[in-house]
Amino acid sequence: MPLYIKSVEKLINEFRKLPSIGPKSARRIVYYLLKQTPEQVNNFARSLIEMKEKVRFCRLCRNISEGDICHICGDTSRDHKKVCVVEDVGDVVLIEKTGRYRGVYHVLRGLLSPIEDIGPEELGIPLLMERVRKEKVDEVIIALNPTVEGESTAMFIKKMLSPLGVRTTMLASGLPVGGDLEYADEITIGRAITDRREI
Amino acid sequence: MPLYIKSVEKLINEFRKLPSIGPKSARRIVYYLLKQTPEQVNNFARSLIEMKEKVRFCRLCRNISEGDICHICGDTSRDHKKVCVVEDVGDVVLIEKTGRYRGVYHVLRGLLSPIEDIGPEELGIPLLMERVRKEKVDEVIIALNPTVEGESTAMFIKKMLSPLGVRTTMLASGLPVGGDLEYADEITIGRAITDRREI
Repeated sequence: MPLYIKSVEKLINEFRKLPSIGPKSARRIVYYLLKQTPEQVNNFARSLIEMKEKVRFCRLCRNISEGDICHICGDTSRDHKKVCVVEDVGDVVLIEKTGRYRGVYHVLRGLLSPIEDIGPEELGIPLLMERVRKEKVDEVIIALNPTVEGESTAMFIKKMLSPLGVRTTMLASGLPVGGDLEYADEITIGRAITDRREI
Repeated sequence: MPLYIKSVEKLINEFRKLPSIGPKSARRIVYYLLKQTPEQVNNFARSLIEMKEKVRFCRLCRNISEGDICHICGDTSRDHKKVCVVEDVGDVVLIEKTGRYRGVYHVLRGLLSPIEDIGPEELGIPLLMERVRKEKVDEVIIALNPTVEGESTAMFIKKMLSPLGVRTTMLASGLPVGGDLEYADEITIGRAITDRREI
């Protein structure tokens, strides 16, 4: 198509591969970048390369890190007997923001998916089991999303951990704080009733 | 904040600068890129640099181009006596897709904005006037968005062109094809009545 400039179309395609960017946004972004100075675009490109060069994954928990061990696993003031299992790097940030958790993490970086060929090895589950055994972990908190994939991954991890005799817990389901019964779905309300607590 | 990896945060900030990307999307994109191979991320970075190196702007119409003159201005089979004025590069693509226009373009790459210090010079209006004069253009079609900024820019261009005696037209306003009266706003319906045509 002679209408399009090859280097522009190539970049639009690169943006379209990213999550939450559709074809229209990809175009809008590239037209925006066309108006920027070469330095601004080069800085952006350099940030991409630098991120990939610098970021490694912690060998204990698979979280992102600039060193061999991440700052959470390296923090001796934290409770290393509690491990919170999360799906992704972003979930660590979300839980840390609550300020309610002082244990360490295990970052799956995915969920079990036979279709995509993602098994226990890809999620570092053997690494988690080794840590539970070696460090005499006393509680594994499974903090996965309450979706089909999340729950089946949680059940699998529970099954793998049960011979090790470690306590396994999961996040409470219920009404969001500040939420309204009227806007909650039946399953959430049902769980909130089942998991009701004394006041 | 020791929670965050500097190179990751820097990249998230770069993505947040882009249009249609909010803080959550920026994070999601960067976590996605963390999972990609170094080659994939390097390809992305290289596309950015390459686009900026290769893309120039046509010296006749200010459209993007890999050469001195864009493929539309360089196409002798097109009608160089008709110039369509558009706000941005993307609008050229939209109009070309209709297949209903065989003239050439003038790409403003912006709209008049006293606040942002964007005047006629920044939009290449002197260049447009020179072209109209030199090439004996017989029609300038102003295809700007029907917004306040779009319409005031259109009025300004019309005023500048009027001493040159060139016919100035604008896109028809009316109901979108396949649209429904019930969902159109009053101003659109009003214009559709004013601009009614014989059937």
